[in-house]
Amino acid sequence: MPHFLVINGPNLNRLGLREPGVYGSKTLVDLEQDLFSLAEEYGFDMTCFQSNHEGDLIDSIHEAEDQYDGIVINPGAFTHYSYALRDAIASIALPVIEVHISNVHAREDFRHHSVTAPVTEGQIVGLGFFGYQLALLALLDKIGGDLDED
Amino acid sequence: MPHFLVINGPNLNRLGLREPGVYGSKTLVDLEQDLFSLAEEYGFDMTCFQSNHEGDLIDSIHEAEDQYDGIVINPGAFTHYSYALRDAIASIALPVIEVHISNVHAREDFRHHSVTAPVTEGQIVGLGFFGYQLALLALLDKIGGDLDED
Amino acid sequence: MPHFLVINGPNLNRLGLREPGVYGSKTLVDLEQDLFSLAEEYGFDMTCFQSNHEGDLIDSIHEAEDQYDGIVINPGAFTHYSYALRDAIASIALPVIEVHISNVHAREDFRHHSVTAPVTEGQIVGLGFFGYQLALLALLDKIGGDLDED
Amino acid sequence: MPHFLVINGPNLNRLGLREPGVYGSKTLVDLEQDLFSLAEEYGFDMTCFQSNHEGDLIDSIHEAEDQYDGIVINPGAFTHYSYALRDAIASIALPVIEVHISNVHAREDFRHHSVTAPVTEGQIVGLGFFGYQLALLALLDKIGGDLDED
Amino acid sequence: MPHFLVINGPNLNRLGLREPGVYGSKTLVDLEQDLFSLAEEYGFDMTCFQSNHEGDLIDSIHEAEDQYDGIVINPGAFTHYSYALRDAIASIALPVIEVHISNVHAREDFRHHSVTAPVTEGQIVGLGFFGYQLALLALLDKIGGDLDED
Amino acid sequence: MPHFLVINGPNLNRLGLREPGVYGSKTLVDLEQDLFSLAEEYGFDMTCFQSNHEGDLIDSIHEAEDQYDGIVINPGAFTHYSYALRDAIASIALPVIEVHISNVHAREDFRHHSVTAPVTEGQIVGLGFFGYQLALLALLDKIGGDLDED
Amino acid sequence: MPHFLVINGPNLNRLGLREPGVYGSKTLVDLEQDLFSLAEEYGFDMTCFQSNHEGDLIDSIHEAEDQYDGIVINPGAFTHYSYALRDAIASIALPVIEVHISNVHAREDFRHHSVTAPVTEGQIVGLGFFGYQLALLALLDKIGGDLDED
Amino acid sequence: MPHFLVINGPNLNRLGLREPGVYGSKTLVDLEQDLFSLAEEYGFDMTCFQSNHEGDLIDSIHEAEDQYDGIVINPGAFTHYSYALRDAIASIALPVIEVHISNVHAREDFRHHSVTAPVTEGQIVGLGFFGYQLALLALLDKIGGDLDED
Amino acid sequence: MPHFLVINGPNLNRLGLREPGVYGSKTLVDLEQDLFSLAEEYGFDMTCFQSNHEGDLIDSIHEAEDQYDGIVINPGAFTHYSYALRDAIASIALPVIEVHISNVHAREDFRHHSVTAPVTEGQIVGLGFFGYQLALLALLDKIGGDLDED
Amino acid sequence: MPHFLVINGPNLNRLGLREPGVYGSKTLVDLEQDLFSLAEEYGFDMTCFQSNHEGDLIDSIHEAEDQYDGIVINPGAFTHYSYALRDAIASIALPVIEVHISNVHAREDFRHHSVTAPVTEGQIVGLGFFGYQLALLALLDKIGGDLDED
Amino acid sequence: MPHFLVINGPNLNRLGLREPGVYGSKTLVDLEQDLFSLAEEYGFDMTCFQSNHEGDLIDSIHEAEDQYDGIVINPGAFTHYSYALRDAIASIALPVIEVHISNVHAREDFRHHSVTAPVTEGQIVGLGFFGYQLALLALLDKIGGDLDED
Amino acid sequence: MPHFLVINGPNLNRLGLREPGVYGSKTLVDLEQDLFSLAEEYGFDMTCFQSNHEGDLIDSIHEAEDQYDGIVINPGAFTHYSYALRDAIASIALPVIEVHISNVHAREDFRHHSVTAPVTEGQIVGLGFFGYQLALLALLDKIGGDLDED
Repeated sequence: MPHFLVINGPNLNRLGLREPGVYGSKTLVDLEQDLFSLAEEYGFDMTCFQSNHEGDLIDSIHEAEDQYDGIVINPGAFTHYSYALRDAIASIALPVIEVHISNVHAREDFRHHSVTAPVTEGQIVGLGFFGYQLALLALLDKIGGDLDED
Repeated sequence: MPHFLVINGPNLNRLGLREPGVYGSKTLVDLEQDLFSLAEEYGFDMTCFQSNHEGDLIDSIHEAEDQYDGIVINPGAFTHYSYALRDAIASIALPVIEVHISNVHAREDFRHHSVTAPVTEGQIVGLGFFGYQLALLALLDKIGGDLDED
Repeated sequence: MPHFLVINGPNLNRLGLREPGVYGSKTLVDLEQDLFSLAEEYGFDMTCFQSNHEGDLIDSIHEAEDQYDGIVINPGAFTHYSYALRDAIASIALPVIEVHISNVHAREDFRHHSVTAPVTEGQIVGLGFFGYQLALLALLDKIGGDLDED
Repeated sequence: MPHFLVINGPNLNRLGLREPGVYGSKTLVDLEQDLFSLAEEYGFDMTCFQSNHEGDLIDSIHEAEDQYDGIVINPGAFTHYSYALRDAIASIALPVIEVHISNVHAREDFRHHSVTAPVTEGQIVGLGFFGYQLALLALLDKIGGDLDED
Repeated sequence: MPHFLVINGPNLNRLGLREPGVYGSKTLVDLEQDLFSLAEEYGFDMTCFQSNHEGDLIDSIHEAEDQYDGIVINPGAFTHYSYALRDAIASIALPVIEVHISNVHAREDFRHHSVTAPVTEGQIVGLGFFGYQLALLALLDKIGGDLDED
Repeated sequence: MPHFLVINGPNLNRLGLREPGVYGSKTLVDLEQDLFSLAEEYGFDMTCFQSNHEGDLIDSIHEAEDQYDGIVINPGAFTHYSYALRDAIASIALPVIEVHISNVHAREDFRHHSVTAPVTEGQIVGLGFFGYQLALLALLDKIGGDLDED
Repeated sequence: MPHFLVINGPNLNRLGLREPGVYGSKTLVDLEQDLFSLAEEYGFDMTCFQSNHEGDLIDSIHEAEDQYDGIVINPGAFTHYSYALRDAIASIALPVIEVHISNVHAREDFRHHSVTAPVTEGQIVGLGFFGYQLALLALLDKIGGDLDED
Repeated sequence: MPHFLVINGPNLNRLGLREPGVYGSKTLVDLEQDLFSLAEEYGFDMTCFQSNHEGDLIDSIHEAEDQYDGIVINPGAFTHYSYALRDAIASIALPVIEVHISNVHAREDFRHHSVTAPVTEGQIVGLGFFGYQLALLALLDKIGGDLDED
Repeated sequence: MPHFLVINGPNLNRLGLREPGVYGSKTLVDLEQDLFSLAEEYGFDMTCFQSNHEGDLIDSIHEAEDQYDGIVINPGAFTHYSYALRDAIASIALPVIEVHISNVHAREDFRHHSVTAPVTEGQIVGLGFFGYQLALLALLDKIGGDLDED
Repeated sequence: MPHFLVINGPNLNRLGLREPGVYGSKTLVDLEQDLFSLAEEYGFDMTCFQSNHEGDLIDSIHEAEDQYDGIVINPGAFTHYSYALRDAIASIALPVIEVHISNVHAREDFRHHSVTAPVTEGQIVGLGFFGYQLALLALLDKIGGDLDED
Repeated sequence: MPHFLVINGPNLNRLGLREPGVYGSKTLVDLEQDLFSLAEEYGFDMTCFQSNHEGDLIDSIHEAEDQYDGIVINPGAFTHYSYALRDAIASIALPVIEVHISNVHAREDFRHHSVTAPVTEGQIVGLGFFGYQLALLALLDKIGGDLDED
Repeated sequence: MPHFLVINGPNLNRLGLREPGVYGSKTLVDLEQDLFSLAEEYGFDMTCFQSNHEGDLIDSIHEAEDQYDGIVINPGAFTHYSYALRDAIASIALPVIEVHISNVHAREDFRHHSVTAPVTEGQIVGLGFFGYQLALLALLDKIGGDLDED
């Protein structure tokens, strides 16, 4: 059974509390519960991790290589400047998919550029919490699983 | 039953023929067949349209408003300069999701910027043909359908 | 009796339907009817043309040279990137006046620059549908007519 | 009867004397006489003001609010750098229309950008002295007058 | 008893009248009255000066050197381009503190850069009318006074 | 009694030890003692926190929301690139005031731009340790306290 | 016998009519007749195509792959922005040579950059109509023909 | 006997008082006395004018046309942004030579660019007060005088 | 009989030795022999010159004016920065054609811009050694010769 | 006996595991063992530290001042954006030498600029693990040791 | 008796032959004869040197230090890119004055920036051959001579 | 016994004479003597070459290929613009190491970018004359020698 790691970066612990006009009113716990339901439905294991510390995110990516089959990551604002995070992703062989809840291209200029995207498999942007579900399905697809539920 | 329009822009009729290292060896017909299977599985209607003509793409978007419930569009190279296409998308009330087969952020500089993305719901980038399937699922989700198949 | 061509570029067929906050609630038909009233009042002929196809706009400009005494053009989003349209305007000897309904300088950055303006007689920006009337009066003035009505 | 203020900025007192290849051979007095004729024809009052002093232009805009129904302004070279003039225009509730005699987009690079345009109603560019007449007609139109002469 | 000069630049005579959403509804007279109260409380003299004329502001700065012990200046829009004002400040030995009522960093791009700040003691930004009071306290502190009131 | 949090970012633990030409010879302990005196004088509570860890600063901002009435922050070099810190500030409802000891506008180019300033109430720059005192007075003012001491 | 396609892009149908100072007084028909003489002399077949429609140019490039042995293309103003045309050229295996009649490097800034050149074999610039002849000789050379005439 | 106008712009009244490390310790009066000695020696008339007001400088340039045979101008900081001053210089037929006391190219970046230089005869930079003398000799040379003294 | 000069700039003496993946395996001697064959075939004289010294290239261009009827030049890397070479070309009346062996537009960014091209007749880029032959034919065409061999 | 600190920044714990084409197949342990051999040979003490946490690197630099005689640091990707790390280096009096294993100037654009280099003694780039040895020798040289081994 | 070196850089041997519209019809010999007359009149020695070779110019500057009392240099196009020439000037203690015959600020963009000017005493621009005379007078002035002739 | 070439570029013959604050007081002869001592100690041959002529440097690099086993080069100011030198380095198969005496990253902006570095093995920057010694040791290491002296 495949095991995926879902990483949420800085300030995503504030989901539901922070700028609801941008991010909606559901919390990180709500998000993770939705994803666990999906995992159950599609038959994969999942671990969730959130940190506001760039170093912790890097450490978790390094350690993921031997424990998981793929990573879904929302690097939050690190997306726009953390070349260290980029190098961490580039240093592992797992498929990594980048997710953004809001449509970053419709927000401030600095959010239009991702330094991490070039070393990921791809990006899912602006589709809300549902984007994480799609990213997990894409990981399943990458490793040979398919869309059919149990 | 929801009805979605899938639009492929310039040079996507060359899929399978063009730069297989970048786009893979499957053709546009293969892509559309996969999507029709998905449509059947999830219970929605779908129409596919491809053109190399910016004006035809704009016309098709205008006309979509009264006929469809959402659009998945891969604007090809128009992504990077067609403000006219952007205005067309902005002129309709349907949800529109932008798809790119390859990870445009890992390619030439000019492919890193999308002039259409800010007026779409969101983007799915780099996940191959599977990205179109995810985009359709996201449209379903937007209009209140769900991931459960028939 | 002078004969003028009024060209509307991409998405202007959506007037009244598209972003009413920006463009108002009157349609392209309303606009053209106003202009025909003006033509009658001031004694000139007028032909109106709209297309979302860059090539069709270029063709119509080429053909205008022998049929009209001047052109009023709203190039829509082509204003900002269609060097081909610019070359078309530069290739004819007729006076051409560029019109924008909204104040493009108060909108997105990409709308602040016009690639066509340098080869026109001038621009009228932000004065709504009335801008087309002023442009026609300016053409009349250019070719020696005057503001006095019949 | 509406009362409009026509403001000419720096160096426009040199009209007819300065670079006739760019600005023509008619003087500022000629320009103002044409406009007074128009005012008479269309039934509005008009006051003309010219200064080379940025501060005087700002003062006149502030004072205009209680005395006039609209402003036509050619800010001359201040167009390209006077954010103070921009703020002055933004600080009043009157409709303001910006006019340039020559086609600034066909001249030096620094003339392509207007810092004042975003806070005006709109711009009329390149139509010579006639542009001022059109701007006054546009003000009339804004406040509910119309094109019909007395 | 120390004597400070408070200089307000272009359009600040419009406080309370201009863009109340940005600047509040209190007027320049209100501001100056608050500051005179503070002066009385803390035991310093103060002179207030406002002008929309760059040259007058420069003159007043030059003349200040022999008459005052420090300057609080809100250069208004001159902040963003008046290198002449910058040179005036650099040409005197008095401490000068720059104040902005609104948070200029949260407004248009052109307001993010100050050409005068590098030659001042410092800046107080975005704290409303209260920013002037803080600037005066800072001047007091600079010249050896303190926060204790009479 | 209001309770404020004073946050000092990276390298500010080196005050007095680091580049005394730029930052003076007083230490972080000296700074905090001055502020506690002020707190006593003006009747407010205060907690001080310093860290060189971006993640710790973010965590402390998140936790502040329920414990404090306002924040004074000197983000040190994070000012110039930590969009994560910016998002943390934007994610809470407390008033936040940014302080810089030196006049950053008179130093290296990279120090002229603050990524955090747009989401704060305002900035106090270049007024030395005294800037923190002013920032605390401004917080008092924001929440309805006043300058009068006990 | 090799068969080459010669494509002329937007506004090149105006040759001889348009800006003779830049492009000379000979027409597109003159150009094509010269090239047919060359074809006869050197023993190759040639088809000529001109369009102002970007989509038609793309279509013709796609279709060329199975019908021709090489392409000479003057993309006109599309040279400077049509990434769609670039992708079309990149999608076929034929040798493609880009021609410009005038020396684009001695004209407006926007003409100095070609988005299509990187995916062609090479460019011939500024040598007038003769440049097309040289391009055809170069194609002959590429496919193993030589300069000797019949 | 030729008559020249020497114009000094903003802050040059502070010569000798302002930044002596950059501008030396001699005053504007010293400078003008030197120049009057030169005028006597070489047999020309001279008038000196200084103002901190951009509008006054523009007015004086306009009025110079009928009264003088040439202008030496040190526009001070207006050099770097006053397009209005540039237009004033361009609007008269007199030879104008620009002088800077210090080597502006060895100072701050903003001083490296002159918006007025392109419309003058030429520039003399960095040669101190002596630069004004050279500029007057150059004017003499322009109008046919020579270096020989009386 | 016309006499042409073929100039090869820095590092072109390394042809065949240097980066064969970019420049092929044939040497400068091979290139020159091919050109002498062409000269014989078409009936013109030719002199070849190569140097790695910018000054020598400039000298040879100056001296060419009285000795030759045209120049083919491959300025090598000087193409991208030698404004001195540009001025040398601009200082003579001969037709000069610039050649690049590789497609510089498909290589590093700095190779995309030519400082010499604007003062030449035109450029031939990316067509290998054959480009020199085409350039010589173009010179023949310029001076009235034609493509017919002896 | 001198004591040096060798600091490795983010992702350098992945040496040998990460992108062997760029960084080789030897691990961080291998590197440190080589350095300890060198230390023994040349008679100095050495401590090695690696962290993916920017704050830990800053803390270690602060603490180094009293414990070591110099620092060799490879800041990894922090090189390109961590102004906090730069300030930490600037805050201590020890000589610091920056090392990069790969030739960063031959890699992605963002790796060409170092924000830390200006406050170090110097940089050694592209010489592999051997670069650390050279940096240690350079520290020895700085503090008066020499190249002679025991 | 002072001894000055006058250096002319690349292409200045073409004066009178090259672009007479820009540089006039007098030759380098004419220029040098004028300067020798001035030398005789004012009592100084002078040596003239021209080269198209950057290295020769650098050598001559190095050697000048022990032989001359000052240098007048027109670096020609090297002005705009030869940092080596700049370093040569910076490496000697003699006063150096830069001269340009034409007004470089009114020509192509690349001529607006001088890399050598920051390390010279100053610049004289646009005053034709007479500029060299003024530069020599300025050198005389620098070393304590004066304007009085023998 | 390996044989290395040490190349010093423009103005390095001025070492000890030029800007001692930047480059120290030791001369080029001193530098070369130190290196010959090192060569003796480590058992390699060495030849030193200095020139201010770009062409001579290029020639010496070309000729080095057959005579030496590696090159240490300090290209002086050519580092920042000589793409010809870059191409020369790229055209040979020898290892080349770039050295700068001063920390170029702490000096003027133009010194921060090296056009030659991407085609070398690596760079040693800011370590004074000792940097050349390290570079030679690195060459020894590259070709299989080691740090052990005779």
